[in-house]
Amino acid sequence: MEPNGHSFLDKVIGIVKEETADHVPLIDFKHPKELEELLSDDLDISKPTSDCELERSVRKMLQYSVKTNKTTFRNQLYGGTDPYGLAGSWIAEAFNTSQYTFEVAPVFTLVEMKIIKHILKLFGIPDGDGIFSPGGSISMLYALVAARFKAFPEIKAKGMRNLPEMVIFSSTDSHYSIMKAAHWLGFGTDNVRIIRTNDFGQMVIDELEATIQKELALGRYPVLVNATAGTTVLGAIDDLDAVADVCEKYGIWMHVDACWGGSLILSSKFKNKLKGIERANSISWNPHKMMGVPLQCSAFLLRDRGLLHEANAAAAQYLFQQDKFYDVRYDTGDKSVQCGRKIDAFKLWMIWKARSDTGLGKLTDHVMEIAEFCLGAVARKDGFRLVTECLQCPNVCFWYIPKFMRNADEDDKWWDTMHKITPKIKELLTINSRLMVAYSPLRHHKNFFRLAFTFHPIVEEREVLDMLQSIEDCGEMVTLSML
Amino acid sequence: MEPNGHSFLDKVIGIVKEETADHVPLIDFKHPKELEELLSDDLDISKPTSDCELERSVRKMLQYSVKTNKTTFRNQLYGGTDPYGLAGSWIAEAFNTSQYTFEVAPVFTLVEMKIIKHILKLFGIPDGDGIFSPGGSISMLYALVAARFKAFPEIKAKGMRNLPEMVIFSSTDSHYSIMKAAHWLGFGTDNVRIIRTNDFGQMVIDELEATIQKELALGRYPVLVNATAGTTVLGAIDDLDAVADVCEKYGIWMHVDACWGGSLILSSKFKNKLKGIERANSISWNPHKMMGVPLQCSAFLLRDRGLLHEANAAAAQYLFQQDKFYDVRYDTGDKSVQCGRKIDAFKLWMIWKARSDTGLGKLTDHVMEIAEFCLGAVARKDGFRLVTECLQCPNVCFWYIPKFMRNADEDDKWWDTMHKITPKIKELLTINSRLMVAYSPLRHHKNFFRLAFTFHPIVEEREVLDMLQSIEDCGEMVTLSML
Repeated sequence: MEPNGHSFLDKVIGIVKEETADHVPLIDFKHPKELEELLSDDLDISKPTSDCELERSVRKMLQYSVKTNKTTFRNQLYGGTDPYGLAGSWIAEAFNTSQYTFEVAPVFTLVEMKIIKHILKLFGIPDGDGIFSPGGSISMLYALVAARFKAFPEIKAKGMRNLPEMVIFSSTDSHYSIMKAAHWLGFGTDNVRIIRTNDFGQMVIDELEATIQKELALGRYPVLVNATAGTTVLGAIDDLDAVADVCEKYGIWMHVDACWGGSLILSSKFKNKLKGIERANSISWNPHKMMGVPLQCSAFLLRDRGLLHEANAAAAQYLFQQDKFYDVRYDTGDKSVQCGRKIDAFKLWMIWKARSDTGLGKLTDHVMEIAEFCLGAVARKDGFRLVTECLQCPNVCFWYIPKFMRNADEDDKWWDTMHKITPKIKELLTINSRLMVAYSPLRHHKNFFRLAFTFHPIVEEREVLDMLQSIEDCGEMVTLSML
Repeated sequence: MEPNGHSFLDKVIGIVKEETADHVPLIDFKHPKELEELLSDDLDISKPTSDCELERSVRKMLQYSVKTNKTTFRNQLYGGTDPYGLAGSWIAEAFNTSQYTFEVAPVFTLVEMKIIKHILKLFGIPDGDGIFSPGGSISMLYALVAARFKAFPEIKAKGMRNLPEMVIFSSTDSHYSIMKAAHWLGFGTDNVRIIRTNDFGQMVIDELEATIQKELALGRYPVLVNATAGTTVLGAIDDLDAVADVCEKYGIWMHVDACWGGSLILSSKFKNKLKGIERANSISWNPHKMMGVPLQCSAFLLRDRGLLHEANAAAAQYLFQQDKFYDVRYDTGDKSVQCGRKIDAFKLWMIWKARSDTGLGKLTDHVMEIAEFCLGAVARKDGFRLVTECLQCPNVCFWYIPKFMRNADEDDKWWDTMHKITPKIKELLTINSRLMVAYSPLRHHKNFFRLAFTFHPIVEEREVLDMLQSIEDCGEMVTLSML
């Protein structure tokens, strides 16, 4: 009756290979309106389309899509995928199922259990529990829900109104998801205390403790300290042992947002940077970031086994029947706030199965070594200036100062100009398809670049030098009249 | 240095095709412990594995996985995938990116805008707004957050403590995600008022209104009525126009959980079942259910354009910079509670592009017609008894009464036995790989079967008869001593 589409499926691998091949540029940038016009027939869904036309439209659309599998895609804290992970995600999509009951996902349930157990051990909380969530921001919600439920189990039935006023502690440089979570869960963003960071982007511990004492004196309940292992911009790792000391002293839930930096746990050489993480009450880690698992793959881990289930279970009669014919302890879905949940564990398992701890350790070492190399090159290269020389995660942050800006008085006006120059260089890098790189202001710092490195594809030293050269080339195209 | 995995990617389509081929059984059921033992070497990730060994393990694991692409997989409200959707999901995974800024997802941003606009029009709220969320339960969170923010914008900064006590209204038969949401967002599950349903599973409107009046008299704030279009078990559709009348009268946010039944909007013949949905303040619809888009694909729609952004924006400086070189109104990610977000719109777009409204309408008509056929066959067949004769969504609910139970006094003891017989039949159906079908108790009803139909693969009448025959065959294997 209808086109069945199965033959189209056979074309996918060819389309993907051709449209992401080596010779294909990183990006063919078009402005939104222009792109809408260019693709207007292709985007149109008002009439049925033959497979042939569909393929033509899809290929054209992919031409204008960003090739995140290129080494020159350094725009975010994710990049190309690990091919084993991509294979895993394709298989999982084809076996279309949900991670909630053993009966529909017998093997995938065991895979999730296996991989969570392995990760818990790596992070030093072998008796803990965990779940895969749709991204780090949702993991942040999980952490706050767990901490709040542990403190006040009556929240589940009674809500927030009759509980004491709760406060949350997080650093200036931490991820904004803490603010979204504070709103959603009913704490209110005013109840997030923002703790100052030092020059390297790490939470100032004395200020954390002083703020906690102040809040306690005011009769408020400190519900969670959100430490960060790998801040979004600088890649800073808070002093986790020091945070743990404070949390223990005052009996506060310690969460570590290790969404970005958690991957360092894979390296015997670099995992000491995360020292203290094993004392956390909960940890979030996104293997879809540095490690290159296809989006989404986010692990939320916690020390207190059983708490996730206790906090979140709703015991739906139609799904989690207790009169099933198998051991229903393998129906793990009621720990989740979601009902249907993608089997994100399988693609991570595929990578681990193929590479093991050893292979993943080597990839971690390489990513840190290439970032170190980049840091050194930026430090030495004329016109480049580091924001910080301290390499914590594989983030290298710097300004490029065009020749016409050098040897001038670096007053406020000069910095205002620099603030405009960075986005302008980025524009030129993008429209010339040279490099996609992040920029950001941070605290008192004016707009600067962040080059962050990920496992895939493996970046070589000469490619790092090319990236810096691209920045210099485009930086030298900038003139004052452009700003 | 490390195995690169690209050649493994070439094997995926072959593995998927062979492991889901026609001759492959629906399920080779093993109990959890037995399966763990059987797969213990395969699941092991302690040492690196060659591509060849990896393939052997993956194939073995897939053998024991459920083949949700078979017509005999009727265990959940999802099933096989639309091949165009699967192709779309594979492409999206390969182009690994996040749906937050135009710069990293130019085409996918336009795709999401296009498809949301199209869906809004279908649902009769053309000037509304929408977002793709990771599942219906998260959409429920979105609905409550939007309704609460609309009523009390100060919630964002100040939290729940100083707001009036809020109550939520939802029917007995509605989805349990309302309870999880009430906990997470700080309302408390005690503040969900459960409204009785009639025999067909529809909310009793008089009771809704009476309950609202009672709550108002007690000084509580009615924040949201959760109507359902397609309850999980019976597939009931609340009288949406009547709910809208009540909501309008009292000025309450009307949400329609159309996660399951929303697909009826695709059919000009059946969309009248959703009459009144165009009056809702918000709607959730999961194309990953009936329509066969690979999990996850969930749309959250709302009438009030701009509210999503206003409620959820955090304006992260590193991501949503306002000094970008393109029109930043195309950076749509700050509407979301998530930061990184999968591009779930693309696979849905692929299906729509290939089939258009016309093709999707035909698939909807077929699914309803096959459910009607099933309903008729169940009504006529000896030993089968319908829970309700009213077909609202393509859910057919019934008991199978084995011969030894017939012509007896249907007292409490008899029903207690029936309650045990249904899961026993399910066990036999599963371990004999005949059929995977849902069962559930509901209100005063003892365990019964739910056969629900989805777009893919297309189910034929003879297959429905086979399903019923399988239930009868396994039902007749049951003896009292087994229970």
